[in-house]
Amino acid sequence: MTTLHDSQWRGFASDNYAGVHPAVMQAIIDANGGHQVAYGDDVYTEKLRELVCRLFGEQAEVFPVFNGTGANVVGLQAMMQRWEAVICATSAHVLVDEGGAPERTGGFKLHPISTDDGKLTPALIDEQAWGFGDQHRAQPAVVTITQSTELGTVYSPSEVRAIADHVHAKGMTLHMDGARISNAAAALGCDFRDFTTDAGVDVLSLGGTKIGALGAEAIVVLNPAAVSGLPFLRKGAMQLASKMRFVSAQLLAIFESDVWRESALHANAMANRLQQAVSQIPGITITRSVDANAVFAILPREVTERLQQQFRFYTWNEMTGEVRWMASWDTTESDIDAFSEAVMQEMSVSVG
Amino acid sequence: MTTLHDSQWRGFASDNYAGVHPAVMQAIIDANGGHQVAYGDDVYTEKLRELVCRLFGEQAEVFPVFNGTGANVVGLQAMMQRWEAVICATSAHVLVDEGGAPERTGGFKLHPISTDDGKLTPALIDEQAWGFGDQHRAQPAVVTITQSTELGTVYSPSEVRAIADHVHAKGMTLHMDGARISNAAAALGCDFRDFTTDAGVDVLSLGGTKIGALGAEAIVVLNPAAVSGLPFLRKGAMQLASKMRFVSAQLLAIFESDVWRESALHANAMANRLQQAVSQIPGITITRSVDANAVFAILPREVTERLQQQFRFYTWNEMTGEVRWMASWDTTESDIDAFSEAVMQEMSVSVG
Amino acid sequence: MTTLHDSQWRGFASDNYAGVHPAVMQAIIDANGGHQVAYGDDVYTEKLRELVCRLFGEQAEVFPVFNGTGANVVGLQAMMQRWEAVICATSAHVLVDEGGAPERTGGFKLHPISTDDGKLTPALIDEQAWGFGDQHRAQPAVVTITQSTELGTVYSPSEVRAIADHVHAKGMTLHMDGARISNAAAALGCDFRDFTTDAGVDVLSLGGTKIGALGAEAIVVLNPAAVSGLPFLRKGAMQLASKMRFVSAQLLAIFESDVWRESALHANAMANRLQQAVSQIPGITITRSVDANAVFAILPREVTERLQQQFRFYTWNEMTGEVRWMASWDTTESDIDAFSEAVMQEMSVSVG
Amino acid sequence: MTTLHDSQWRGFASDNYAGVHPAVMQAIIDANGGHQVAYGDDVYTEKLRELVCRLFGEQAEVFPVFNGTGANVVGLQAMMQRWEAVICATSAHVLVDEGGAPERTGGFKLHPISTDDGKLTPALIDEQAWGFGDQHRAQPAVVTITQSTELGTVYSPSEVRAIADHVHAKGMTLHMDGARISNAAAALGCDFRDFTTDAGVDVLSLGGTKIGALGAEAIVVLNPAAVSGLPFLRKGAMQLASKMRFVSAQLLAIFESDVWRESALHANAMANRLQQAVSQIPGITITRSVDANAVFAILPREVTERLQQQFRFYTWNEMTGEVRWMASWDTTESDIDAFSEAVMQEMSVSVG
Repeated sequence: MTTLHDSQWRGFASDNYAGVHPAVMQAIIDANGGHQVAYGDDVYTEKLRELVCRLFGEQAEVFPVFNGTGANVVGLQAMMQRWEAVICATSAHVLVDEGGAPERTGGFKLHPISTDDGKLTPALIDEQAWGFGDQHRAQPAVVTITQSTELGTVYSPSEVRAIADHVHAKGMTLHMDGARISNAAAALGCDFRDFTTDAGVDVLSLGGTKIGALGAEAIVVLNPAAVSGLPFLRKGAMQLASKMRFVSAQLLAIFESDVWRESALHANAMANRLQQAVSQIPGITITRSVDANAVFAILPREVTERLQQQFRFYTWNEMTGEVRWMASWDTTESDIDAFSEAVMQEMSVSVG
Repeated sequence: MTTLHDSQWRGFASDNYAGVHPAVMQAIIDANGGHQVAYGDDVYTEKLRELVCRLFGEQAEVFPVFNGTGANVVGLQAMMQRWEAVICATSAHVLVDEGGAPERTGGFKLHPISTDDGKLTPALIDEQAWGFGDQHRAQPAVVTITQSTELGTVYSPSEVRAIADHVHAKGMTLHMDGARISNAAAALGCDFRDFTTDAGVDVLSLGGTKIGALGAEAIVVLNPAAVSGLPFLRKGAMQLASKMRFVSAQLLAIFESDVWRESALHANAMANRLQQAVSQIPGITITRSVDANAVFAILPREVTERLQQQFRFYTWNEMTGEVRWMASWDTTESDIDAFSEAVMQEMSVSVG
Repeated sequence: MTTLHDSQWRGFASDNYAGVHPAVMQAIIDANGGHQVAYGDDVYTEKLRELVCRLFGEQAEVFPVFNGTGANVVGLQAMMQRWEAVICATSAHVLVDEGGAPERTGGFKLHPISTDDGKLTPALIDEQAWGFGDQHRAQPAVVTITQSTELGTVYSPSEVRAIADHVHAKGMTLHMDGARISNAAAALGCDFRDFTTDAGVDVLSLGGTKIGALGAEAIVVLNPAAVSGLPFLRKGAMQLASKMRFVSAQLLAIFESDVWRESALHANAMANRLQQAVSQIPGITITRSVDANAVFAILPREVTERLQQQFRFYTWNEMTGEVRWMASWDTTESDIDAFSEAVMQEMSVSVG
Repeated sequence: MTTLHDSQWRGFASDNYAGVHPAVMQAIIDANGGHQVAYGDDVYTEKLRELVCRLFGEQAEVFPVFNGTGANVVGLQAMMQRWEAVICATSAHVLVDEGGAPERTGGFKLHPISTDDGKLTPALIDEQAWGFGDQHRAQPAVVTITQSTELGTVYSPSEVRAIADHVHAKGMTLHMDGARISNAAAALGCDFRDFTTDAGVDVLSLGGTKIGALGAEAIVVLNPAAVSGLPFLRKGAMQLASKMRFVSAQLLAIFESDVWRESALHANAMANRLQQAVSQIPGITITRSVDANAVFAILPREVTERLQQQFRFYTWNEMTGEVRWMASWDTTESDIDAFSEAVMQEMSVSVG
């Protein structure tokens, strides 16, 4: 088999349209050859365990999985009894983008809360954090927040801390969906543990795929007292890789060095460059704070349609016409410039 | 990151201890670069669809997934209503080795049947194929067979045909767990479709991982009338890869050329070589027909223990002391010879 | 055993605090004696089938179950494939009061919509009726409405019709939670079928318990094409009564004669009497239209607390202090008058 | 509504074809009138709690439910984590007669074991009690036994004790399905606690329906340390009765006095009378020990068919022609004599 696609074509639809970072590819190659014990008793997974302790604290435990939905659902299951439930934002990936996996496969209910910017707060959480002990209510037990959020915003360490304190005071625990955690850390200019372990997060979905892996995520347990049965739950949820060495090697390649940081800084910078360019075009409204690698904007629908014939991206909200443009680790300045140019062009035609 | 393990060490524990076939690794590299639409709308998955039609018939449909448990559980779900159940052998991987995923994640009951050699027959199936229409019984709807079986045996095309005819006559459908389908086809010296599509199988789990993939399996629907909702069920079961191009590229590398056949012929030959060598050692009983790449044997427990200090393999049955030795696509003649030699040595010490 | 409680004590907490209507008790006694085939093949269930056809049309089918949660979850399951989801109001019993049974036991997701008065409309439904065919979204397949609603309001036949037409036009089906259907029919002064079968409802939860049964509800299928597998789903959901004759006899007693209508007219009248009385007390706000047998009001918290020491009722919304007062089939005029008197008394103390 | 059936007709199909014992009916009537708090906070359920402590020990807790499947599935769920499994006999009701509710609704796997007489033993349990800690195996956590068994046999207190000790020594817990516990206690001539609490059983399904209730079973927790979350699990499994006073009143009527014992002694005596009569007829083989109220026999199929035209009973095993005849609390001596006579008659025709 040879290359079947145009390896120079890139769009703005999603950071998971991008391919594999060269350092990750090399790590996969290096991990090949000979036999390694399957299902996680290999040296690469062992090394990943050590790395996770360095990054997140000595108590941290790591469970590599296949994808983000798997990381979220299995991690959340491990934090709950069967009769408990998860509080989340109405924009949460786990609520709107996982095809019912939390409910049907995970077996748990989600209690959603509307937000302005995708970020929960202690006050917002209280809209659903009630009914403890009432057998008629699926018991709120875990709050999940996304970092960076599905709306491209980022929680500061102190915002996470405030949520964690509030959640713990109510006897609940805190989960973070970190599918884009690298973009958040790069944006904040801090280490992962500043807004996870040190801010009171109990369990983290650590994202690799969107920042350059072929397909590698991990459940990182920051507070082992908050979970139980993870190895069994992962297997039962069909997220246990037999040749796990290759999943772990990908995560090592990204998080052992600065691959994650450089890739995320770059993606964020590209989003910022795009925002700078389009925010000056009359008739376009940037709708969300561009904290990380996503730009949300409202523009005339006919402009969107003409742009989508040339560039790939999604309409986020059919009712308002809001669109989402994602930058990836491999987005180039000329990608951004060509796109900004096209936006300007189409807007001028439209308004013109 | 560099190589952390001894890439020359190999054992006999499982064909999933082996690494990635060079042709598969090259395919992953070739599929990299640029952007491709996520979740299966990429050119590699499109090409895989064409290949599957060539291999299994024009009507065939393919749904790549992460692992064998995922392929089995999602494929079976798609063949059933919620109140239905699956008939399988007591040795079936889906019954004994999937951590309760079928019941808990798939939500379906398994009706097990004891066999001598891991192979079901029409007569055996009748032990569980009853109670149709009785609301108190989880309704038998699908029979699943494994090819090659967990006991290293292989169904002939006519054996599959007889089962399919029997199953269909009762209004049920037939599923095949083909985690080691390449080993079976190599052993039979025929094409896949001779004992799948043409023998009446409705849905197949097509195995890539054990024959040289990094991690790639697929649900292949041979009879589209036998399934419903597969895209949704796959997503809900958390088996939908975002960067699917890399999963599909692996399967293309294996099944588009003779990689599968050569690898399987080789693994089977290595198993046969091992059987030849050890069957001549007094005190060792080969317990199963060595049809594919597995050798089962009973030998003194203390010999097993001493051998396990040098070579990696599993005791299959703690009560009888039966062990399993698996050959892989990368097992070498000298691996076999060194092991046979060690077996002979330890047996002579023991019997001495 | 003898009577252990004060059989003259009644409160306003819930219509399921009331006991068994004399006609229902007599029907249970009459159904006793000798043997009847278990699990629904008895003459009382057969008679119920005939009655349901008379009430809801010749095509209607009935499946008695134990309780309202069972009726809702099993009925909805039967209307859906595993990957589908239910649209409901945020006030729906199925969303907030069933302990996660829909998600965990039923295995399906709920897409909630905020309403002012507990009633959905075609426009509101569109907030969640989207994403058809998108594998990432639990597929909207059923809309459920409650009649009368959890907020004491009632849909007119034409309101139901408008919803049904809208829902069907989008390829979905319509479910009605009729735990208090008798109160709705009495309020509307019409027959059940005017706002069910004839208004386009596909499946109904027919409530018996709140209108005088010991414990008897039923799934009534108005459109058999909208469901599949109901007998199996009911059994698997543990809602199949062995001595079903007694469940069916209860429903016969209520719905074969005017027991339902007289009981509901009375309960509604009692709620109305209460509303009349308290709405004239300064400082009390009636918050919802009193269409059926529930009165919602906001009054000072300290008044609520003092009243709750004498009378049993629930605070509906802890944040606003809104309370709910339910009238039952056995509420008397003097119950209402004594309570109204007490409210007036406590309010005067408070405002005094 | 009036009586629609022949209240003198009785058969031998099942003890749940029988109706409601007069003492139970009176208790339902006595519990009626006025309001009682719903969902278990009523005085009858409170009294039942006291009774259960007297019968099973001060630590015992009781959770009334609707039916036996509900009692088994919810009780077992409460004894397990999600990744755990239940060991049972292949004849267990929970395995073969609950329509897949354990797997689909309970979410747990059953590990079945073949027995000669429906009774497990420590040695038999070991066939499935292995693989602890292996993530690929649904973890054996609970053993369930049925008393009296589905094959009409009864465990002695010492047999239960031996199982309990064995199970506990392996870190598992013991569940007893007591759908016919009264028949067992009557047969053994002892109190319930002799073969439950005092024999090491952790959780019991206490059967009311088959011994004269309208529909009332209960989960009785003998060892509170063995369970968690029962109130929530019961609600989520849709087994929480709103008007629970009537369920509890039924159980009080049966177990507060000697209703259970007299009814069970009578049913057992009737089964014994039947066995005595038919065992003397040439050509009929009694196949199981008649310990309680069930008689199993093999007789010529054409005789079975002719008998089934006059009397209602089930063929237990289609392959062998074995039939089951159940006696109930309301079976009369003349019922038995008429049936024995008919058996003799038809056998003489057949053999004659």
